[in-house]
Amino acid sequence: MVPGFADIIAAQARIAPYAVRTPLVESWQLNAITGGRVFLKLEILQRTGSFKFRGACNRLVMIPESERAKGVVAFSSGNHAQGVAAAARLFGMPALIVMPSDAPRPKIEGTRALGAEIVEYDRLRDDREAIAAKLCAERGAVLVKPFDDAGIIAGQGTTGLEIAEDAARFGVNLDEVLSPCSGGGLVSGLALALKGAGSTARVHSVEPDNFDGMKRSLEAGARVQAPGGKLSIADALMAPIPGVLVFELAKDVLAPGFAVSDAELERAVAFAAQTLKLLVEPGGAAALAALLAGRVDVKGKAAALILSGGNAEFAQIAEMARKFSA
Amino acid sequence: MVPGFADIIAAQARIAPYAVRTPLVESWQLNAITGGRVFLKLEILQRTGSFKFRGACNRLVMIPESERAKGVVAFSSGNHAQGVAAAARLFGMPALIVMPSDAPRPKIEGTRALGAEIVEYDRLRDDREAIAAKLCAERGAVLVKPFDDAGIIAGQGTTGLEIAEDAARFGVNLDEVLSPCSGGGLVSGLALALKGAGSTARVHSVEPDNFDGMKRSLEAGARVQAPGGKLSIADALMAPIPGVLVFELAKDVLAPGFAVSDAELERAVAFAAQTLKLLVEPGGAAALAALLAGRVDVKGKAAALILSGGNAEFAQIAEMARKFSA
Repeated sequence: MVPGFADIIAAQARIAPYAVRTPLVESWQLNAITGGRVFLKLEILQRTGSFKFRGACNRLVMIPESERAKGVVAFSSGNHAQGVAAAARLFGMPALIVMPSDAPRPKIEGTRALGAEIVEYDRLRDDREAIAAKLCAERGAVLVKPFDDAGIIAGQGTTGLEIAEDAARFGVNLDEVLSPCSGGGLVSGLALALKGAGSTARVHSVEPDNFDGMKRSLEAGARVQAPGGKLSIADALMAPIPGVLVFELAKDVLAPGFAVSDAELERAVAFAAQTLKLLVEPGGAAALAALLAGRVDVKGKAAALILSGGNAEFAQIAEMARKFSA
Repeated sequence: MVPGFADIIAAQARIAPYAVRTPLVESWQLNAITGGRVFLKLEILQRTGSFKFRGACNRLVMIPESERAKGVVAFSSGNHAQGVAAAARLFGMPALIVMPSDAPRPKIEGTRALGAEIVEYDRLRDDREAIAAKLCAERGAVLVKPFDDAGIIAGQGTTGLEIAEDAARFGVNLDEVLSPCSGGGLVSGLALALKGAGSTARVHSVEPDNFDGMKRSLEAGARVQAPGGKLSIADALMAPIPGVLVFELAKDVLAPGFAVSDAELERAVAFAAQTLKLLVEPGGAAALAALLAGRVDVKGKAAALILSGGNAEFAQIAEMARKFSA
């Protein structure tokens, strides 16, 4: 079932006691560069360092008390993993997470530190969904999908409600909103929320080159698989095709998508660190990368970018910053 | 003349078109560490990377049109410099800044990039106030003091109004507020603002060891010079004694002050980068350093920390992060 605006309102009430109400802040630096007004949604400051906690928390609250003891299973390259692990710990549920063995160390360690059990798999060889389904069946646990689930989409959509509230406080009507996109739960959920809140903003997905399934699907009017291939530095954004439920929603609420190169992502990570003073992982910087690369002209307009997540190794960001230092 | 609450309200209206309305965000990580609710005022996101723009902007707006052509002169180790330069550029005024030759490169470059003329001096040998006074007299320019001025204090105090507004939105009564302190314009202004807004929070200055003039003065009940000596890594916090006007206000509105060591400052900078995902310069991390070092127990309480500024070289922060990495 595709979620509606009411589901996002309900999710907001459910997660409010647990999730961080993250700020929207105007960037004087990006205003100067673009000639527009650019606002940043600092979702790197969310619990576990990414928006993923919102969906996981909403989904887990929806599990009836009687089914909680058997726990949850999820598959994730790291941010959904930490979101699910953190929510499970809050509700006293066991969590088992299927993670690629090449996931960034802070994501694996962060997930383990939250008390989750981790099963590693080979990103290129193994079928993570099959592994997760088997483990789920063995334990009688609930599978918490990373994006193709109404509860997850509604949870991620709460970012859009907050953006709408904060834009109103600033007295701003947003014209363009850019969001990182992997399976599409965040971007479609937040577009639904903005629309429901009366915003006329155009909401754009931003994906890595070759993993731009949402962009291609929106262009085709039907779900299309991106070619994939060489791994992107945006380890969080490598879903090759949007979810079924996600696309059912996305096709009605999204403006055309964008794709960015690894070099554009690296430049955005370096810019965030050196200029904005914010540490953002490559996938989390996708929206910023699209803006800096000129995919959208916001001169004289108001735009909001989602910055999420922040779970990169500091050394990796430092390396990118060095590459782009003056 | 010591400023009153009405001056801060007036400053807020004056600077609103130019200054960033910076966010207050709850830190889930610091909540977990302290057992309290810890909110961060992200003044690193202010125009020019520190709160200093607020005071400079308010002060420059107060200069009559007829006196603006001759420009302004300021002395500063870097953050006030950038604040004054940015405000001067906005109002089309020439700015001349007297800066120590050992000021961090991003601060000197940032000031120059804002169109200011820079005169360097030797921090240990020269009298910067005398140099600035002479230049001021030669040009007929207005001297914009870094802290001991009612317009400056009122401008910095606008941070306190915003904290009070945002705390109310969160439904929180703040118990403790910690702020970096050099000459004391920020901490005394924000304490006045919080008090005027009805808050009963205890507001604490945080200074580097040996440059803790405010702490010593509050203890003595009169302005006392700190010993100084070896330079602190907090280049922005090396005023050895609070301003005259500042202390007149501070003695009525501040709770006891804290002092922190260079090692505690470094640890806070590293923690901000690695855990909070925020790049904060050593002086800007003073309040966080005091919290992490246990100077105040916020268990079961609500606290706000000012994080400002963010104008360190990335490599310097990277070095501190390396030192404290697991």
